Amino acid sequence: MAGTSERVVDVTVTPVAFRDPPLRNSVGVHEPYALRTVVEITTESGVSGIGETYGGTLHLERLRRTAAELVGMEVWSLNDLIARTTRALGGDTAGGDGMAGMVTGSSTADRVMAPFDVACLDIQGKLVGRPVCDLLGGAVRPSVPYSAYLFYKWAGHPGQEDDDWGAALDPAGLVDQARRMIDAYGFSAIKLKGGVFPPDEEIAAVRALRRAFPDHPLRLDPNAVWSTETSLRVARELDGVLQYLEDPTAGIDGMASVAGRSPTPLATNMCVVSFDDLAPAVARGAVDIVLSDHHFWGGLRRCGQLSAICETFGLGLSMHSNSHLGISLAAMTHLAAATPRLTYACDTHWPWKRPDEDVVDPAPLRFSGGGVTVPTAPGLGVELDREALARLHRQYLDCGLRDRDDTGYMRRFDPSFPTETPRW
Amino acid sequence: MAGTSERVVDVTVTPVAFRDPPLRNSVGVHEPYALRTVVEITTESGVSGIGETYGGTLHLERLRRTAAELVGMEVWSLNDLIARTTRALGGDTAGGDGMAGMVTGSSTADRVMAPFDVACLDIQGKLVGRPVCDLLGGAVRPSVPYSAYLFYKWAGHPGQEDDDWGAALDPAGLVDQARRMIDAYGFSAIKLKGGVFPPDEEIAAVRALRRAFPDHPLRLDPNAVWSTETSLRVARELDGVLQYLEDPTAGIDGMASVAGRSPTPLATNMCVVSFDDLAPAVARGAVDIVLSDHHFWGGLRRCGQLSAICETFGLGLSMHSNSHLGISLAAMTHLAAATPRLTYACDTHWPWKRPDEDVVDPAPLRFSGGGVTVPTAPGLGVELDREALARLHRQYLDCGLRDRDDTGYMRRFDPSFPTETPRW
Ligand SMILES: [Mg+2]
Ligand SMILES: [Mg+2]
Repeated sequence: MAGTSERVVDVTVTPVAFRDPPLRNSVGVHEPYALRTVVEITTESGVSGIGETYGGTLHLERLRRTAAELVGMEVWSLNDLIARTTRALGGDTAGGDGMAGMVTGSSTADRVMAPFDVACLDIQGKLVGRPVCDLLGGAVRPSVPYSAYLFYKWAGHPGQEDDDWGAALDPAGLVDQARRMIDAYGFSAIKLKGGVFPPDEEIAAVRALRRAFPDHPLRLDPNAVWSTETSLRVARELDGVLQYLEDPTAGIDGMASVAGRSPTPLATNMCVVSFDDLAPAVARGAVDIVLSDHHFWGGLRRCGQLSAICETFGLGLSMHSNSHLGISLAAMTHLAAATPRLTYACDTHWPWKRPDEDVVDPAPLRFSGGGVTVPTAPGLGVELDREALARLHRQYLDCGLRDRDDTGYMRRFDPSFPTETPRW
Repeated sequence: MAGTSERVVDVTVTPVAFRDPPLRNSVGVHEPYALRTVVEITTESGVSGIGETYGGTLHLERLRRTAAELVGMEVWSLNDLIARTTRALGGDTAGGDGMAGMVTGSSTADRVMAPFDVACLDIQGKLVGRPVCDLLGGAVRPSVPYSAYLFYKWAGHPGQEDDDWGAALDPAGLVDQARRMIDAYGFSAIKLKGGVFPPDEEIAAVRALRRAFPDHPLRLDPNAVWSTETSLRVARELDGVLQYLEDPTAGIDGMASVAGRSPTPLATNMCVVSFDDLAPAVARGAVDIVLSDHHFWGGLRRCGQLSAICETFGLGLSMHSNSHLGISLAAMTHLAAATPRLTYACDTHWPWKRPDEDVVDPAPLRFSGGGVTVPTAPGLGVELDREALARLHRQYLDCGLRDRDDTGYMRRFDPSFPTETPRW
């Protein structure tokens, strides 16, 4: 292929749904299916690459509109991908975050181009015969550590059988959940999704986890449902217990007012979610650690730029996760492997996904000692299973869900469920 | 080559010298020869790539030490290049800038790794069959505009015949120089290296250039020999005349005190010369435009990070130049082509180099309309001429110069030449 151009001849965009347990968070509870979209790009020489992103009708429509614009694009040109995405979107940039209202300020262009960036890198890696991490600067670690991502959860979706994990609604339930997850995967760090119960109950849960796992770094993420006063109180009470406190309160100003007085480092994937947020966050000292996420930061190469910014301005770098499939786990792993700045175990929802539901054969994504061994095959190292894709697309069509709505689902069972913030 | 690793088996480091006219600047005058170093990396499959950097004994010794450390490196791994360079340097990081004292704070590791980064990208491009700009995100412009870089100069080196350009020591001489350079190359922007004569004479020169070239953006660079008061006075007198004023005064604090009151944008390649300088410069609002230079910002990929930082923090981006050969012109052109943020015509010393002295066949580097057409051949698009390299290396051995010393050379003819700053 050397010396020839490598232009896009076809782009497919396929929404899928996979089963998801009733995981609680500040805005409600996960619905029975998580929605994702799989993109596949094929070039003139017949090489194809894949990417994965959010589901959601508005996002899906934008992906399709952008996909049409990508035919003819040189797969080596990130700049052309940015230009074509911008052109396809026109001025249409509001909404469509697909994250149930929890992350709303991210750049629409970055969000839309991200899966195509991943697919282009998958193709580039195949053309070159190198894993994607090599196209991002080369792996600095053979395995990428992930964290045990704990959730308060119901035993099962209402009206369905209990799921395999069972309920976790108090400290003991969370310790059991952590134990099982760590036994299965070997995770060496623990994150608790909070913002569900009054802060003192979540403090008690963190303390129970500390007693049960004395050497595991611990994180707590209440998704910005606390006031600055509550945030500061929790940060002080958990001084020396938490590795970082994630988005205790809303906004750069709110976070800054906590950060200036908090003994616990503050992390965010809510108030710094786009390149536009970085200058004000740096100026105000709002956060200590940014949780990158290639799904809303514009793909893997743009996340490399984010890492350089964090390094230059003294910010730590960790990684955020939403419910995802194997394509994203592969992409996250290549990115983290090639990002020296990323010194924290990354978040992943992987254990919450049923092993029999994916769009790729997940065999190359091997967990060991809490980390995923970086795939060494050309590209992402995972291949689309077209039969499985068709199955999860059928599930998407059949399940009836089109937009993630944790709050609406919660209110079906608790009509008075509040969403005003700060809640505590 | 797909699927195989591509490891470095050989690295050569060759100092060269090429003739340079007596160009004046704030620290003295260019010596009769400019010193550069050419690096060549060869991989196990026999592909080779080239890079170019400063001469100078300390830098040369560091390049050689690092070269030895690169054998066995995977050419795809920027992260490994950084690690190996850091290892080779150990704690040895002071001095060795090779820029006659004009740019002193840049990162030694970034300066030493830069030519190797260029050589690795040259190899990657050849392996993939794509021009280097494609590995940097793809060209956003088919031609990279450069500026007419004017210098006050003597008619010739003392004791030698006058050179072809002749003297330029007043406004009329500079206008003639600009006319000739623009006629030959088509440049659409003009930069004057100042800091040589009292500010009012240089203001007069800028005004003469404005009259002669009413539509060309103009820049003036006194290399930080002015006080903040003088800087502000000149910035105000040339309000609306200069596109930007480059390094009127020294240091981030000095520049910040001018920037806050200057109607003319301030640019720098002296107070923001490494990633460590960016946070304080941003915090103090010291500059409007950063002049990138892959030779001291760590190579082409690190310059992509610099561009992302400039975009994120609202800084403009232009490009700095030292006396250079064709390898660097190719590298600068690929970088600028792939950097959307770089909206200013780049600086280059190219017209000051004799056409018959280079280490590559410069034919692929075609100037047209003031710009260089981006090479489309795989890699940098220029190939080492081994006979010419040997000739310029011989010239290096024979010329006796080992470290650039504009001030020492100046004092041979003007023993009282002052270097105290601010001079005006
Ligand atoms: Mg979070
Ligand atoms: Mg300058």
